[in-house]
Amino acid sequence: VMGDHIYGDGFVEEAVHGEGLVVDPAPRYVDRAEATGVRIEGGRVVAIGKDVPDPDAYDTGFFVLDPTIFAVTAALAQRKASFELSEVMAQAKPPVHIVSGKLWTDVDTPADLKRARAILVSHAVKGTGDGLVSRLINRRVSTRISRLLVDRVTPWQATWATFGVGLLSAGLNLLSPAAAAVLYQVSSVLDGVDGEIARASMRTSPLGGWVDSVLDRYVDLAYLLSLAAVVQFPTSFWPVVALGLLGSVLVSYSTERFRGAFGEDMYRTVPILRFLPGKRDERILLTMVLVLLGLVRELFWVLAVLTHLRVFLTLLLGYRRKTA
Amino acid sequence: VMGDHIYGDGFVEEAVHGEGLVVDPAPRYVDRAEATGVRIEGGRVVAIGKDVPDPDAYDTGFFVLDPTIFAVTAALAQRKASFELSEVMAQAKPPVHIVSGKLWTDVDTPADLKRARAILVSHAVKGTGDGLVSRLINRRVSTRISRLLVDRVTPWQATWATFGVGLLSAGLNLLSPAAAAVLYQVSSVLDGVDGEIARASMRTSPLGGWVDSVLDRYVDLAYLLSLAAVVQFPTSFWPVVALGLLGSVLVSYSTERFRGAFGEDMYRTVPILRFLPGKRDERILLTMVLVLLGLVRELFWVLAVLTHLRVFLTLLLGYRRKTA
Repeated sequence: VMGDHIYGDGFVEEAVHGEGLVVDPAPRYVDRAEATGVRIEGGRVVAIGKDVPDPDAYDTGFFVLDPTIFAVTAALAQRKASFELSEVMAQAKPPVHIVSGKLWTDVDTPADLKRARAILVSHAVKGTGDGLVSRLINRRVSTRISRLLVDRVTPWQATWATFGVGLLSAGLNLLSPAAAAVLYQVSSVLDGVDGEIARASMRTSPLGGWVDSVLDRYVDLAYLLSLAAVVQFPTSFWPVVALGLLGSVLVSYSTERFRGAFGEDMYRTVPILRFLPGKRDERILLTMVLVLLGLVRELFWVLAVLTHLRVFLTLLLGYRRKTA
Repeated sequence: VMGDHIYGDGFVEEAVHGEGLVVDPAPRYVDRAEATGVRIEGGRVVAIGKDVPDPDAYDTGFFVLDPTIFAVTAALAQRKASFELSEVMAQAKPPVHIVSGKLWTDVDTPADLKRARAILVSHAVKGTGDGLVSRLINRRVSTRISRLLVDRVTPWQATWATFGVGLLSAGLNLLSPAAAAVLYQVSSVLDGVDGEIARASMRTSPLGGWVDSVLDRYVDLAYLLSLAAVVQFPTSFWPVVALGLLGSVLVSYSTERFRGAFGEDMYRTVPILRFLPGKRDERILLTMVLVLLGLVRELFWVLAVLTHLRVFLTLLLGYRRKTA
């Protein structure tokens, strides 16, 4: 591969099964005017270069070659002191392998670098486990933040900063539950940043994921407990508060324990779970909305019912899937 | 191997690395008077049979042989219509491989079967994750129960029955918190039975482990919540109740999420965690004792502090181990 190119997982997975020059007829992430065009005839390269008019496809800088290519390079080396890989291709006329529309781009200039960073961050969104709110709202904001921070902040710094904002939202309940609810939602948006930075810069680690998950549970605990405390519910209502709090943890527990048992991402094994409401991003937006509407008692009722219903369905669907 | 023999994992792991006849000089699970004795000289079998006087070791019925043994069996087959494996051994004089004191036994009579069942159940205790109370008290009782039930009850039936007893203990709080506390401890003892039956009868399943874990969380939730409700704590004390409840779940969450992240049993990766108090068996015995002493408020304080301290140490030790 070309050393100044970036390829997404999806691109590489398709490209490695090819033979010859991997080309893309419809590149999504490069400026076609700057790209190296390829003329294809009979499934082979017949012309290659930035000056090929109206090219059939573009050189992705990804090659799957066998040792016969060295005969071509040896012949070229006898004629010229230096030559480019595109000259080798023009000479060897290798077959082409089409991979279309997947992530690949090259980085030549500072502007390219900035563009590449933005592309990587927007591709660094977690594959599964995101709720509706995350997909529609949180990720759109968090990826913009991650784009700014990816070269300045480590994933661990983002994890701890997000934890700090979460605890701050809990503390803010003592001053203003409305402001605290907004800050809680802000912390939910920020919660995507550590993972995005980690994935975009290839620094993901199971350790980071583990610590982040446990800290998320503590942010929820701190926020909801301080909210319930400042509202001063009567004793008779506290079992509902406790059920809502516990349900929030048990939604995560039941899916994470599944991964521990089977070594599988439960959202892949039982995809319908992705569409069941009750995940953290959804709970937190709902929390903000209901607190702003002054419906705190209703909030805890909804949490108490919704979360345990979700755990029940998680058990049921997991059991069915595994005994089917 | 002999088809009527039973071998433990530890035995097999050592035996397969041997050559010839695997013998045990100190069998722990067979009646030596009934066992096949082996006379050894120069590391080889020189005599074998139930009538060998004062044998050097006993035939475990486990052989690691190469195809040359068929020359011996062919010669014997020409002389006799039928013969026993011990005759083949006496003839072939294979080397012996000593595996001492590990689990192996044979099953010839109904009495042997009963004995074998008891041995299997007592060996079916979970390797890691048991707290001190489990090791010293719960397992001693639960294995006796499992021995009686292993052929009569499926692991799933045991799981649901234990869940039922746990919920019953929660409900019993309305009538008598003291009786409920004892029943809660009974459910903690019974909680070992499903796993023991499953392991002893080779019916363990990740599905069973997953469902059982989630149900355990609900038994704790139901018991502690109903206890707190009948005691009628003032509003100001309920945050402590909620912290105790959440901590009980988070102790499990933090170690299970570790397994999800790393695919490792955290009690193996960070063995010191086994000796930190706060696991479920320990919490439940403590709960029973404090409730019987009338120290319910103190119980929730202890749970609130102990569990979160344990989660903090879990994070710290896990982080250290993984960055060391």
